[in-house]
Amino acid sequence: MIDLRSDTVTKPTQAMREASFHAKVGDDVYEEDPTVTKLEEKAADMLGKEAALFVTSGVQGNQIAVLTHTQPGQEILLEEEAHVFYYEGAAISAFAGVQPRTIKGTRGVMAPADLEAAIRPEDVHLPETGLILLENTHNRAGGAVLPLETMEVTYQMAQANNIPVHLDGARLFNAQAATGISAKTYANQADTVQICLSKGLGAPVGSIIAGSHQFIKQARKWRKRLGGGLRQVGVIAAPAMIALTEMSKRLDEDHKHATKLANGIEEAGFELAYPVETNIVIMDVASAGISGADMMTRLADDGIQAVQFGPTLVRFVTHYDVSEEEIDETILVLKKIKSML
Amino acid sequence: MIDLRSDTVTKPTQAMREASFHAKVGDDVYEEDPTVTKLEEKAADMLGKEAALFVTSGVQGNQIAVLTHTQPGQEILLEEEAHVFYYEGAAISAFAGVQPRTIKGTRGVMAPADLEAAIRPEDVHLPETGLILLENTHNRAGGAVLPLETMEVTYQMAQANNIPVHLDGARLFNAQAATGISAKTYANQADTVQICLSKGLGAPVGSIIAGSHQFIKQARKWRKRLGGGLRQVGVIAAPAMIALTEMSKRLDEDHKHATKLANGIEEAGFELAYPVETNIVIMDVASAGISGADMMTRLADDGIQAVQFGPTLVRFVTHYDVSEEEIDETILVLKKIKSML
Amino acid sequence: MIDLRSDTVTKPTQAMREASFHAKVGDDVYEEDPTVTKLEEKAADMLGKEAALFVTSGVQGNQIAVLTHTQPGQEILLEEEAHVFYYEGAAISAFAGVQPRTIKGTRGVMAPADLEAAIRPEDVHLPETGLILLENTHNRAGGAVLPLETMEVTYQMAQANNIPVHLDGARLFNAQAATGISAKTYANQADTVQICLSKGLGAPVGSIIAGSHQFIKQARKWRKRLGGGLRQVGVIAAPAMIALTEMSKRLDEDHKHATKLANGIEEAGFELAYPVETNIVIMDVASAGISGADMMTRLADDGIQAVQFGPTLVRFVTHYDVSEEEIDETILVLKKIKSML
Amino acid sequence: MIDLRSDTVTKPTQAMREASFHAKVGDDVYEEDPTVTKLEEKAADMLGKEAALFVTSGVQGNQIAVLTHTQPGQEILLEEEAHVFYYEGAAISAFAGVQPRTIKGTRGVMAPADLEAAIRPEDVHLPETGLILLENTHNRAGGAVLPLETMEVTYQMAQANNIPVHLDGARLFNAQAATGISAKTYANQADTVQICLSKGLGAPVGSIIAGSHQFIKQARKWRKRLGGGLRQVGVIAAPAMIALTEMSKRLDEDHKHATKLANGIEEAGFELAYPVETNIVIMDVASAGISGADMMTRLADDGIQAVQFGPTLVRFVTHYDVSEEEIDETILVLKKIKSML
Repeated sequence: MIDLRSDTVTKPTQAMREASFHAKVGDDVYEEDPTVTKLEEKAADMLGKEAALFVTSGVQGNQIAVLTHTQPGQEILLEEEAHVFYYEGAAISAFAGVQPRTIKGTRGVMAPADLEAAIRPEDVHLPETGLILLENTHNRAGGAVLPLETMEVTYQMAQANNIPVHLDGARLFNAQAATGISAKTYANQADTVQICLSKGLGAPVGSIIAGSHQFIKQARKWRKRLGGGLRQVGVIAAPAMIALTEMSKRLDEDHKHATKLANGIEEAGFELAYPVETNIVIMDVASAGISGADMMTRLADDGIQAVQFGPTLVRFVTHYDVSEEEIDETILVLKKIKSML
Repeated sequence: MIDLRSDTVTKPTQAMREASFHAKVGDDVYEEDPTVTKLEEKAADMLGKEAALFVTSGVQGNQIAVLTHTQPGQEILLEEEAHVFYYEGAAISAFAGVQPRTIKGTRGVMAPADLEAAIRPEDVHLPETGLILLENTHNRAGGAVLPLETMEVTYQMAQANNIPVHLDGARLFNAQAATGISAKTYANQADTVQICLSKGLGAPVGSIIAGSHQFIKQARKWRKRLGGGLRQVGVIAAPAMIALTEMSKRLDEDHKHATKLANGIEEAGFELAYPVETNIVIMDVASAGISGADMMTRLADDGIQAVQFGPTLVRFVTHYDVSEEEIDETILVLKKIKSML
Repeated sequence: MIDLRSDTVTKPTQAMREASFHAKVGDDVYEEDPTVTKLEEKAADMLGKEAALFVTSGVQGNQIAVLTHTQPGQEILLEEEAHVFYYEGAAISAFAGVQPRTIKGTRGVMAPADLEAAIRPEDVHLPETGLILLENTHNRAGGAVLPLETMEVTYQMAQANNIPVHLDGARLFNAQAATGISAKTYANQADTVQICLSKGLGAPVGSIIAGSHQFIKQARKWRKRLGGGLRQVGVIAAPAMIALTEMSKRLDEDHKHATKLANGIEEAGFELAYPVETNIVIMDVASAGISGADMMTRLADDGIQAVQFGPTLVRFVTHYDVSEEEIDETILVLKKIKSML
Repeated sequence: MIDLRSDTVTKPTQAMREASFHAKVGDDVYEEDPTVTKLEEKAADMLGKEAALFVTSGVQGNQIAVLTHTQPGQEILLEEEAHVFYYEGAAISAFAGVQPRTIKGTRGVMAPADLEAAIRPEDVHLPETGLILLENTHNRAGGAVLPLETMEVTYQMAQANNIPVHLDGARLFNAQAATGISAKTYANQADTVQICLSKGLGAPVGSIIAGSHQFIKQARKWRKRLGGGLRQVGVIAAPAMIALTEMSKRLDEDHKHATKLANGIEEAGFELAYPVETNIVIMDVASAGISGADMMTRLADDGIQAVQFGPTLVRFVTHYDVSEEEIDETILVLKKIKSML
């Protein structure tokens, strides 16, 4: 099978396994694991923040950020298909007690004016706006890059309104690879940022959140409550370090594969839901006269795994464990399917 | 001042005060207040439900409904400007731990197909859809009536998906007055309903929620936790009974006043945001070249109180304590303001 | 029936009904009801606080205090049979997300040293101690007065540890009546206080919370979320004013009745669970060889209503609607029951 | 330094590192990691449950159990120094919205009669009792074993009251080693159980929860919300398998060391807070005329790390990374300290 379901399926490299094997470890609940400490320092440095914290997943990182920034009864602003709203089991409401107010974006990009209009004035009927949450790149908008300029305008507006900004940068290094703008430069337009090491970067497990010393101190306690305070965590921090420092440099290869696949989809006579910007390709089979579910079955029959993303949408994600040859093979399959419709 | 801010400002009538004065009372935490028991039985009957419960406000009634129907980590579907989402301080997330997923309606009316498309499939990433919440009439959509047919289609769809439906009928009797369809007929298209007695119906305090015996039993405990378990509540249940049984018959008078006011607004050269259906009139001053805030000031200077409802929107609500003469006076003021722009 | 179940069963006096009938009212969500404003100012003055807020019940007042003082994941310290822990449906955990840590008191009085020992140090495993909650008089300890000196030592210790103190003073005026120490003097040893107007003070509905301006401002929003933002609330604030200013002076009568009843219990050959200090009498029938449930039945058969308070405990509460003759009658019944065992 | 702070400090063995290096992995969010699946099946089998789930820590396992078993506004019964109450940051209240009601045990053992007396009857004022939570061995009671007979009586009583039982068995294999009664036999007296693999069992990271299929299905979603849904988790599941199957057999060695240390403490002239049953030794220095903090400093000066467990208590925990020679060395240090007092 060619697995294009998600970049989360990437398996640890040989170098990662060796790094884990040799990792110096300690008890990180006592803050004594040297490998995770080094990873956190490196991540803070690469993201331009005072401090960073290793967490077990992007979900955990985002939830900790919301728990730390907000108070129950507040409202947070985020895009209507943001991962935090769409895919995290309503945890922001279950745990942090905050109400999401979703803004419709254009390819995942919320207009700063729309965000500003959604900020609540002080009134006894109204929740306070407690957080603005951005996502870069935006998964459900097809891996779209949130432009730096939009982030700048948004952050200035947020600061003027005393509202913190959290960046869900699970795929922030894909934005860096696509634009040449560093992850640090993007992260500079938010108070806190989460990056995921186990998606395109290929670590087996783990994400990072970064922010001020004060933020990380509080985040550490919320991580403990969520069950993310681990012991000899160096065994997963060591491969995560390779993901962060080495694998982040190779993402343009995934992007080339995605572009090739997108071109192949169009050559085959299918349509794209969005133009491709990074490593995510979303195909819309509506005009082909079949359903997304039907398409999924046909792909699976020919050895291609993807993810259904809506009634007529199918998502493909390129990553380290998919070669150019497999992309070519996938395109052949798509052409074959099209010819049989 | 002519107070057109809200129908909540209505003062108790002489009959209500007398009913309160003579009310037989008991300790309702022990379920021994005969006046509230009678009110609850009457309300259940008028709404076609097994049982009803007196609560101190529409907010409390809606919150109890959400707490009783849902579990934390679920998602509820409601219109993007529904009162429960817009004006209840994010309490559904703070207390019930549920995430609102808002649907854009047309004049407050969510298309059943949009609702159905928003129901979440079973997946480890996704919240379960725990409740569909309707509002009739819809406040922010300008007192718009939610058509019975839409409710019917929605309820059938909800039942097919095993999702309960709660109706925020704070102004349900306005819908009844506007269409001639009984409150009971509307309430029949939902599992539970909240009606407010202290808006157009003029009671000093109180709302009702109604549903099955099982629902009301659980609701009673959530009411206690919210601090709504009262003692000699007959003193407010007695006037509430008059609101429910007598005042509900006179709402067409408010509707006539609203229509007259709306016509006056247009005659004056202003625009309406929406056509008028019940007792709420929303004016949009965008085309007049002034802001909503400016309009508010000008109205206040001439003795008219309204509520700003957006950057260029101003809301007027007609009610028992506003006479036809005051509507005429308001129209004169509007014409004067227009002439001076 | 002679109703000694609770002082909550008191019915509004004629003066209260008249005050309600004539009350000037307005919409209190807009803070325009003159009667409630006057009540809040009077209560703030009597309690020595900057501001006060009318709420619908003692439960609501206490819950608002916890919601306003604390944050989720904190711990609050309170007596192991405190009303907030024992009788409020776990609402502090459901709504405020705080964990109660209970301290065993002596007749409801927690030793300040025990409280201090329970304060959590800063550690990633531990919740922060967010609130100390006192109850005066203490219901389940038999209406016991919390001595002023204990409150003073506790408050100094709390302030030294930067922990706020809330006083559940649902029956604080009973403490005043018993000791001659003013409610204000007691309230001075806490940051915030709740007093209930519908227990011994006889108002049909309502409690007050008092504290700083900042506290009351935040409390007002939590009250709205709980559904306690009412409209023409003057109709219940007016009788509540009489409860606060007049009825608070007559509680020593209830205390005399309680003492008489307690003496009668002992004369009859039954035992008291505690000596009587205010208006609550708790009898322990263990030594009489019957169960509390059995005792309840026998009392009911002879027209006496009380509340079972444990396997062998029965609670009687004296109040405005119980006369000395009824106390005498109750004693006769107790003697008769004893003679038949 | 000789590290006797906790058995959590154990470092992965060479065999564990090799197992991790060679582990077959997949994406466990898609339930495709063969190594974790094997671990979960093995754990379910060893614990006699239908299914099991790998979680990142004991805290996470316990929190998931509480979230899955209970609903907000319920009360859970647990020992007053249970780990879930004492050391988990009030997360049960912050996340699950439940109120802990703590029972004072004897060496951590709650009398079944005390538990039964604490179950709440149905009443509008009272939370429902939603869960009984046991801990075996009990950490703060000095590693005390909860006797099987007590568990049996407790479980029968709980079932008779329709209340589920969760067993915090973070150190359940220490109970097995101490009594010869299998972990499965203990787990059979609870609906669900959590065992920790990264304490005495030496895995770098991870715990297991086990229960019915239905429980694990719901638990999986709560784990996702908490951020515990991991990807190529086989890299930590592989060493965890060794911990579960191999290391669980060697715990009697730790127990011998603990007994030796306890004897040494008494020979040195210090007192034990409790007799030793497993791998935890708690010394009480009160009679020695020094504080716990002072004792900690003196130990550290001589290269011994322990944990302060109260004003005069010091806890030592034996584990795989502490040799008999180090125990002897620790005893010499204790004798030296005593001689200098």
